[in-house]
Amino acid sequence: MPKDRIVIIGGDAAGMSAASKIRRMRPDQAILVFERTDFTSYSACGIPYFIGGLIDDVDQLIARNPETFRDKYGIEVRTQHEVVAIDPQSQRITVRSRKNCEFTEAYDQLLIATGARPFCPDVPGANSSGIFGLSTLASGIRVREFLVNHQPKQAVVVGGGYIGLEMAEALIRQKLKVSLVQRSSQVMGTLDPDMGALVSKALKDVGVTLYLSERLEGFETSCGRVTGVVTDLRTLPADLVILGMGVRPNSELAGKAGVSLGEKDAIKVDNRMRTETENIWAAGDCVATLNRITGKPTYVALGTVANKQGVVAGMNLAGGDSQFPGVVGTAVSKICKVEVARSGLQEKELKALGYEYAVATIDAKTRAGYFPGAGPITVKLLGEKNSGRLLGAQIVGMEGAAKRIDTIATALTARMTVKDLVDLDLSYAPPFSPVWDPVQIAARKLVKTL
Amino acid sequence: MPKDRIVIIGGDAAGMSAASKIRRMRPDQAILVFERTDFTSYSACGIPYFIGGLIDDVDQLIARNPETFRDKYGIEVRTQHEVVAIDPQSQRITVRSRKNCEFTEAYDQLLIATGARPFCPDVPGANSSGIFGLSTLASGIRVREFLVNHQPKQAVVVGGGYIGLEMAEALIRQKLKVSLVQRSSQVMGTLDPDMGALVSKALKDVGVTLYLSERLEGFETSCGRVTGVVTDLRTLPADLVILGMGVRPNSELAGKAGVSLGEKDAIKVDNRMRTETENIWAAGDCVATLNRITGKPTYVALGTVANKQGVVAGMNLAGGDSQFPGVVGTAVSKICKVEVARSGLQEKELKALGYEYAVATIDAKTRAGYFPGAGPITVKLLGEKNSGRLLGAQIVGMEGAAKRIDTIATALTARMTVKDLVDLDLSYAPPFSPVWDPVQIAARKLVKTL
Repeated sequence: MPKDRIVIIGGDAAGMSAASKIRRMRPDQAILVFERTDFTSYSACGIPYFIGGLIDDVDQLIARNPETFRDKYGIEVRTQHEVVAIDPQSQRITVRSRKNCEFTEAYDQLLIATGARPFCPDVPGANSSGIFGLSTLASGIRVREFLVNHQPKQAVVVGGGYIGLEMAEALIRQKLKVSLVQRSSQVMGTLDPDMGALVSKALKDVGVTLYLSERLEGFETSCGRVTGVVTDLRTLPADLVILGMGVRPNSELAGKAGVSLGEKDAIKVDNRMRTETENIWAAGDCVATLNRITGKPTYVALGTVANKQGVVAGMNLAGGDSQFPGVVGTAVSKICKVEVARSGLQEKELKALGYEYAVATIDAKTRAGYFPGAGPITVKLLGEKNSGRLLGAQIVGMEGAAKRIDTIATALTARMTVKDLVDLDLSYAPPFSPVWDPVQIAARKLVKTL
Repeated sequence: MPKDRIVIIGGDAAGMSAASKIRRMRPDQAILVFERTDFTSYSACGIPYFIGGLIDDVDQLIARNPETFRDKYGIEVRTQHEVVAIDPQSQRITVRSRKNCEFTEAYDQLLIATGARPFCPDVPGANSSGIFGLSTLASGIRVREFLVNHQPKQAVVVGGGYIGLEMAEALIRQKLKVSLVQRSSQVMGTLDPDMGALVSKALKDVGVTLYLSERLEGFETSCGRVTGVVTDLRTLPADLVILGMGVRPNSELAGKAGVSLGEKDAIKVDNRMRTETENIWAAGDCVATLNRITGKPTYVALGTVANKQGVVAGMNLAGGDSQFPGVVGTAVSKICKVEVARSGLQEKELKALGYEYAVATIDAKTRAGYFPGAGPITVKLLGEKNSGRLLGAQIVGMEGAAKRIDTIATALTARMTVKDLVDLDLSYAPPFSPVWDPVQIAARKLVKTL
């Protein structure tokens, strides 16, 4: 089914992965992309490192700019063009250009790849300057400019998820005094509390002050600029605030057009990335995704997933047949010197789903204990009682710890038991691992209790 | 089947893993271990790092010494006791003690964990001083003492396998001039030639002079000390020679007692680590192991495997029921700054076994391209035509490259296809990986050709 006119809304990971895949498969296919910002195909995950000064030039975060897409791939990207309406009946979209004039465009097949946006709480002062959410490259550039122009001294990060913690580190690196406010009693809610506590410790070790179990109530401002963060317990002075309270899918455009939404209001798609509306597809941070372990939909906003879904959508749009099989819940982050990884289900998910499970947590080293640079690593494994099936893992440790989660992700996908994990022929040499890999040390402990 | 008297021959990885497992399961079981050298439970894999000076104290390589086993675990280890004969009929062994007197001991169950020894070629001068094979901790100590006492200047390593290359690096680190002689046209014969070439380059980059496709013919000596290595093409001056020409199983003792031998004269065992002789078990570097991919026996001498087999043997000896499922051919090494890993089957094995296969090799980065410290990584994947099944992988790259082989080892064990690999939910964050992990970049390339 090669189509006359493929239109893509959104020029980042999912949208441009799809466009590139279509181009490779169909050299003559007309492809038109509308992108609200100035940028295409950038690494949103790199933004904290740009703000922290580890990366100097914002261009390093851009894999391919609109000119490259046009000149090298024959893909037309209209930047600063926001799609404001979709009419599935007439198969036309309404676009608002940079000069604020509106026009309509026809499509034969439409891919929605509108991404996600940071959650912005509806509290007093939330619109003041000096308060930033982070999702687009443009927002990252604004924060870095703010650092240069206003030389803020005291930052408050609201929210202790991946972005919040990576930003806390970035601002410490830029020599700010950094506090972090988190409503729940732990940072990194995708980890169990015991593992989250290890991350809290790492943050404190680099000088981040944590205010856990505190609720954001508003912002103090002066002349339209933020001066403080008000919680239910105190007011923290702040001349820079980062919102890391999670993201929401940009699905309103689709929703208004009658496209079905699912988990957390993300767009509902099948495994070929088709929405329930004819000739409309969706991929990336705006869609709901299947969890391969539970068989239920979930919402994740991750660059890997967006890229993979974009490729699948592109193959199908180009007339191929490709499925996206879903995720197992893998995520990884580096917070200061500590690497954090998780995959599968965590305890609160297992309880909610009614699993009977057992837990083993072990402390080991990233290398042979005697090898220079061996650092601590803690591995927590979760397995199902009776069946012995592996259900999830969490890892917190020093350099070399995090990528071990890929073994878990692979084992989860293969529906391995914990005993299967013990039996794996994993690699060992003193610079890389103890003779039993920490993942297997944990599996050996867990297998006894299943 | 708790037994009255369990005797173990060999006090390193397999033997002491078994002994420890038996003790945990049967607190009152009599366990007697005979060990030829002074040492128990040491990391043979750490010896090159001890010789290279990365580790100063040899005690760091010893996980548990004989006193600890005796005092803490109630396991009696008689060091400097060599078992010289086994009589399966009378269930007695003959032991030669440190004072050279012989005596016999009865066993109800016997575990042979005699390990392996470096191959020593039968060429003129091979018994001269200054020529070392490396397998026991004692041999490692002798090399380090030789470095201190004789201050050698020019070393020749004969053989380009893992031990040879790790020793070449160790001696470069100790400021020696190092040459390496290898009979075949590449180092690291467990890699395909194209990947082996990357390792050769890494060796040359740190100053090792390679003499490939040269055959060792003998040694020049003076007053019983080595002075040169004679190949079919030249004589290389040498005041220290390391033999890295592979290892042979220490299976003669078993063979003489009528215990069946298999692949490469290693002891034949079933998946419970039982030999074909009643009440005799074997584990570790002295046994042949099942390759889970081919279903055929193979011979590997690796610490991980020895430890796992020791645990399995121990559980069975203590009356449990445990199987060792075999290996998929995983091995890993660090040669200077380059990390080298492999798992599954390499091209020459695939050809010999008659597989129809395809290959993809890619160059990528260990981290996001823009992230500080991103280094090159080359991944080669092998997959079966038509079935699409993953058959093997080889990885050469900078820091962070090697442990990716564990994803491959897990996928091989699960008999995944290359497409399954593309679909894996592997971890991504800029400090750890490009958005598509290099393993998946290779899989995406390979999947097109299957």
